[in-house]
Amino acid sequence: MLLGSVEAGGTKFVCAVGNEDYRIIDKTQFPTTTPEETLQKTVDYFKKFPELKAISVASFGPIELRQNSPKYGYITNTPKPGWANTDFVGRLKKDFDVPIYWTTDVNGSAYGEYVMATLFNEKINSLVYYTIGTGVGAGAIVNGHFIGDLGHPEMGHVRLKRHPDDLDFKGICPFHGDCLEGLVAGPTFEARTGKKGQDIPLTDHVWDIMAFYVAQAAIQVTLILRPAKIVFGGGVVSETFLKKVRAQFKELLNNYVDVGDVDKYIVMPLVKENGSATVGDFALALKEYNK
Amino acid sequence: MLLGSVEAGGTKFVCAVGNEDYRIIDKTQFPTTTPEETLQKTVDYFKKFPELKAISVASFGPIELRQNSPKYGYITNTPKPGWANTDFVGRLKKDFDVPIYWTTDVNGSAYGEYVMATLFNEKINSLVYYTIGTGVGAGAIVNGHFIGDLGHPEMGHVRLKRHPDDLDFKGICPFHGDCLEGLVAGPTFEARTGKKGQDIPLTDHVWDIMAFYVAQAAIQVTLILRPAKIVFGGGVVSETFLKKVRAQFKELLNNYVDVGDVDKYIVMPLVKENGSATVGDFALALKEYNK
Ligand SMILES: Nc1ncnc2c1ncn2[C@@H]1O[C@H](COP(=O)(O)OP(=O)(O)O)[C@@H](O)[C@H]1O
Ligand SMILES: Nc1ncnc2c1ncn2[C@@H]1O[C@H](COP(=O)(O)OP(=O)(O)O)[C@@H](O)[C@H]1O
Ligand SMILES: [Zn+2]
Ligand SMILES: [Zn+2]
Repeated sequence: MLLGSVEAGGTKFVCAVGNEDYRIIDKTQFPTTTPEETLQKTVDYFKKFPELKAISVASFGPIELRQNSPKYGYITNTPKPGWANTDFVGRLKKDFDVPIYWTTDVNGSAYGEYVMATLFNEKINSLVYYTIGTGVGAGAIVNGHFIGDLGHPEMGHVRLKRHPDDLDFKGICPFHGDCLEGLVAGPTFEARTGKKGQDIPLTDHVWDIMAFYVAQAAIQVTLILRPAKIVFGGGVVSETFLKKVRAQFKELLNNYVDVGDVDKYIVMPLVKENGSATVGDFALALKEYNK
Repeated sequence: MLLGSVEAGGTKFVCAVGNEDYRIIDKTQFPTTTPEETLQKTVDYFKKFPELKAISVASFGPIELRQNSPKYGYITNTPKPGWANTDFVGRLKKDFDVPIYWTTDVNGSAYGEYVMATLFNEKINSLVYYTIGTGVGAGAIVNGHFIGDLGHPEMGHVRLKRHPDDLDFKGICPFHGDCLEGLVAGPTFEARTGKKGQDIPLTDHVWDIMAFYVAQAAIQVTLILRPAKIVFGGGVVSETFLKKVRAQFKELLNNYVDVGDVDKYIVMPLVKENGSATVGDFALALKEYNK
């Protein structure tokens, strides 16, 4: 069976076709330009696969995912020029008479990691996936389902206690200044130090400051959701960085609640090279098809 | 049909018997002394109702609610003298051969409010219930179910940004100092001012400080869970106080995500006099019976 995946990012789109074992059969990517052009390219790509049985889209946001809303399937009030109020699912439906699943990019990644964990025989019902890249966002699965009654979570924008050595930094979130995204997104390296993150050795103190904030986010989500694991993906994240995050997390948590082995609780994605969303999309498309 | 409810608090137990309309038929309460004595009184009470079809317990914690744990049904590592490692459900099962549901006190209250909202025709799938009394805790329902894969949430212990006029206050949480509970539980009034909360007029600035912290907790839970509503119960909470909380919440949220009408989003319990857990217990006992 052929299943379609769209990973709709603010910078680029990744479209892929796979099977019910979540294996990629074909894949393409193109830059995110205007909605018309980018969605046309998406449609053109999938038209090459007339056997396609379902499509899942994991999109940048904010998006409308309340099925009873007239704007269901839209990208809503994004600051990205041209993209506010874009009927994404409607555009696909015009050309494809197959079930279409619609969720956020980070939900797609969370679901991919959830499915992979299950395939690796982890007995879990919940998972949180954070991406720390150009922006910061998170998707969550609770009791096997996505969460969000009034809309999708915006966990990238929680407020945190400031690090004593970082009090002068205003943060770069255009909405909140020093929220999580404003303090740890990739471009904060340039804002703090004038250098890109990839050019700053992990021994630099700025990485301890980063880890302090990321650990706090992990603590918040632990106390509120009690998930089975927290996965961190995105360009900023490395195993060396997560070691620092785990150390700060343990100190802040102080054994207050049981999370098992922290090395298995705070982890890198099982799917390499930020491919979690594609796996998630195949699984969600299959689920939508079987519904 | 007769259903049993135990609201097991650290100070007192409230036992009640009701019907499938969640109406109380009989009710009693007694102080929480030793586990032996208190659980014996609970058993003796329900023995008067041989028609009882199911019991639900909403207990102070921490408790073990993972069904695959050998300690399922226990109160675990509570600091309350004598109560650590108490097999609560096991004690009831010795005397009652009926289904027994087991959850936290705040989950019980959350479920009661959820059921009541549904009876009032609110179309919701999620809800968070905070109690602000001697301690602070919260229960949550997502997609109609409780959350927590590794255990129940501990939302009372999240960390917050400190209010500029409150920086000298160390907080009273024995574990964390200035977590949410450490900053807004009832006894913080005595700790800050030497007077009880009930003796401090709502015009006093200390109430603005309280509202600032409670609003932050509401923001965290909004961004992480996107619940349909947040209910605040417990001795500290009044409608006048919630007005202050809503004002600070709106300012902090700054329309970043849509929560609808804040007056309907941040609310007092529908069930009066902290009776939400009893209604929740009846509903959970009925659900357990029908399973
Ligand atoms: N090794 C690295 N260390 C720190 N930051 C990095 C590293 N590699 C990439 N980044 C930063 O991550 C961001 C890009 O994140 P990425 O997840 O790759 O893309 P996007 O979020 O745009 O999809 C950029 O801000 C980049 O500077
Ligand atoms: N009107 C009030 N204003 C502020 N605090 C109050 C008020 N009434 C009670 N409290 C405080 O609430 C706490 C008791 O909370 P309550 O929910 O009644 O009990 P518990 O949490 O022990 O079940 C006490 O610390 C008490 O001082
Ligand atoms: Zn922000
Ligand atoms: Zn605490």
